[in-house]
Amino acid sequence: MATTLNNALSTQERLFRARDAASRTAQLSTAEKNSLLENMAQAIESEQKSILSANQADLDESGIEGALRDRLLLTPQRIAEMAQMLLDVAKLADPVGEILKEWTRPNGLRIRKVRVPMGVIGIIYESRPNVTVDTVALAIKTGNAIVLRGGKEAAHSNRRLVEILSSVPGVPQGAIELLDSSTRASVQELIQARGFIDVLIPRGGQPLIDFVIENATVPVIETGAGNCHIFVDESADLDMADAIVINAKTQRPSVCNAAEKLLVHQRIAAAYLPRIVKKLLESGVEVRGDEQARALAGSEKVCPAEAKDWPEEYLRLCMAIKVVPGLDGAIAHINQYSTKHSEAIVTSDEAHARQFMRLVDSAAVLWNASTRFVDGGEFGFGAEIGISNQKLHCRGPFVLEELTSTKYEITGTGQVRG
Amino acid sequence: MATTLNNALSTQERLFRARDAASRTAQLSTAEKNSLLENMAQAIESEQKSILSANQADLDESGIEGALRDRLLLTPQRIAEMAQMLLDVAKLADPVGEILKEWTRPNGLRIRKVRVPMGVIGIIYESRPNVTVDTVALAIKTGNAIVLRGGKEAAHSNRRLVEILSSVPGVPQGAIELLDSSTRASVQELIQARGFIDVLIPRGGQPLIDFVIENATVPVIETGAGNCHIFVDESADLDMADAIVINAKTQRPSVCNAAEKLLVHQRIAAAYLPRIVKKLLESGVEVRGDEQARALAGSEKVCPAEAKDWPEEYLRLCMAIKVVPGLDGAIAHINQYSTKHSEAIVTSDEAHARQFMRLVDSAAVLWNASTRFVDGGEFGFGAEIGISNQKLHCRGPFVLEELTSTKYEITGTGQVRG
Repeated sequence: MATTLNNALSTQERLFRARDAASRTAQLSTAEKNSLLENMAQAIESEQKSILSANQADLDESGIEGALRDRLLLTPQRIAEMAQMLLDVAKLADPVGEILKEWTRPNGLRIRKVRVPMGVIGIIYESRPNVTVDTVALAIKTGNAIVLRGGKEAAHSNRRLVEILSSVPGVPQGAIELLDSSTRASVQELIQARGFIDVLIPRGGQPLIDFVIENATVPVIETGAGNCHIFVDESADLDMADAIVINAKTQRPSVCNAAEKLLVHQRIAAAYLPRIVKKLLESGVEVRGDEQARALAGSEKVCPAEAKDWPEEYLRLCMAIKVVPGLDGAIAHINQYSTKHSEAIVTSDEAHARQFMRLVDSAAVLWNASTRFVDGGEFGFGAEIGISNQKLHCRGPFVLEELTSTKYEITGTGQVRG
Repeated sequence: MATTLNNALSTQERLFRARDAASRTAQLSTAEKNSLLENMAQAIESEQKSILSANQADLDESGIEGALRDRLLLTPQRIAEMAQMLLDVAKLADPVGEILKEWTRPNGLRIRKVRVPMGVIGIIYESRPNVTVDTVALAIKTGNAIVLRGGKEAAHSNRRLVEILSSVPGVPQGAIELLDSSTRASVQELIQARGFIDVLIPRGGQPLIDFVIENATVPVIETGAGNCHIFVDESADLDMADAIVINAKTQRPSVCNAAEKLLVHQRIAAAYLPRIVKKLLESGVEVRGDEQARALAGSEKVCPAEAKDWPEEYLRLCMAIKVVPGLDGAIAHINQYSTKHSEAIVTSDEAHARQFMRLVDSAAVLWNASTRFVDGGEFGFGAEIGISNQKLHCRGPFVLEELTSTKYEITGTGQVRG
């Protein structure tokens, strides 16, 4: 671990190095990339002490407390998990080189569409240092160079991690570049680096994402908020509905695929609301409701839901309930207020389920399953970068394949166009 | 044709109408969409007179001359071509509804990834009124709503065309919205209409594209410039090289897939340059060359190529020639100066061809074929919107499929996450 980062480089110089490195990372074979990932895992494990010490410096300097401190904190176990993640990514199939289509034209031209690396990935993220290792792993696996701009509260941890990862023998110089996090200037340069960054990923809260979208001139993939809904239809199996609602709301309330809103068909509202409200309250959930839901809830603990509740992503143990006149009303409400992430219907009526899945305009639609399943890992894709709510390039779990682009290779025998 | 456009609507109101229409266009069946396209073709044919009269008003008011006038001009034949294009698009396969993947997870969840409409397409374009009909055809075929912002010089033609197309019975209200082209304000509103526009396509010159990229907050697909190269390798069949160079340069010099630069291996430069330079000059091409090329060209008519020539897209009968030391030098020059559109190698050496196709970082790479084949129609895809040089979402011919997004449909039996 002799190499250390050259801290004197400017953002512009780092962008040049990454652009230049991309042509070399693109040529690494699958075996070479997997071997780099395995050696990175080993380096992370054997440098546990220096990583913890850098992390301690971050914790001391930032002075943050509570949940934010927990996001920043590294432990021997979390470091072991980072190393394991590198090994897991090494085991995934390599999407680069896949032939997506191949055909011959009547004039004899042979055309194939092949998967190639994206080039240079940019990422702007907030406190959690494991994001550094996650994104380096995914970028290297897909033959890309990566430019990282982490949060300033994690500066020491991120620098140490990047020193370790980029010092692994065989990693092309410039393939992993970490930008200065002490000022906003590097963010501004990164998001406007046309020709240097092929895709930029903002990972963090809505203010960060909004800032990037408003100011970026490079292509951006927005991984977004989840104001997810569950609609309990007239014909729902109510035990199943209970299990899905409680799981989607409480199993991990701080994540984007947790449910935030419950819509109940008016014909079963009187029967269903008292039982689900009771269970939610017992699970520690703050329950809000529209007028009808409150009237039928059978509990004085249900607060009034206000207009601002319907578009809100709580990310905590809070759920708002609305009684809807039926399937169409549920679909209309969802399409108006959801963030287009994941929405579920609980029903025994297949026609209703099909209509819900067809008409709800979200990245994922579920029938009789918890919204918590909308996740790269749960889909069987391995590591994910986030869930995209946008429709361009990637919608839903943003995984390895989406860090690639394509190229057309055309082979002829001297054909010219008539 | 009783309906006329409501000209009193603001940009904001048109965006709302389009957003609202998208949920209805998305539900049209393939048969319904094809029938709309066929009826649009018929309406365009039968309204030939009113279209020509609107076009005459544009020609009179704009007072433009020459090539620009020709771009704006409609004739009975061009109107017939528009109608034919609508019929051609009706015959293409409908990408919407295609199941891209389908699998079952160990927990029994059934997941499928299906192709769905994008939602609302925005397009900003310059003079040619046929773009109005082309993009409406592609948008309707893929179940999208479309918001058009054409050039002010074509305002009458575009308005008449949109009146005709949107008056076809069955076209959802708001599915085809034309914005006011008299001021820049509608452009500004369109490119920042987050939540209303799912993808924005700027079609026009570099200044328009740059303005959109610099200022847009909605996702953009850049269809771009083509500074395309041909590399004639040491082992090239020189007759084949002649045919490809002349075709790629002269068959239609004003388009993005025309070749602009010729790189010649130094070992064959003395033999090849005089013959190709002679042919280029005979074809009316202005030839420029680096020092070595000029020395070997055997003609005094070859002007010196300057530094600014190498990145330039001429879009006319002009070609700059450079002698390169070999394959690596050709690849390095291309990756430095090309706009990453289409590049060709002429060689009899398969290993060289493979290396060129692997290492040149462009949307399309060709071996022994003219760059002019890089085109949606020539690939067999039907109508195209342009060629994308960006790596996100769509690279190369931008066709029907790229006007769609995907959705995950997940079917369970009450699964919750453990």
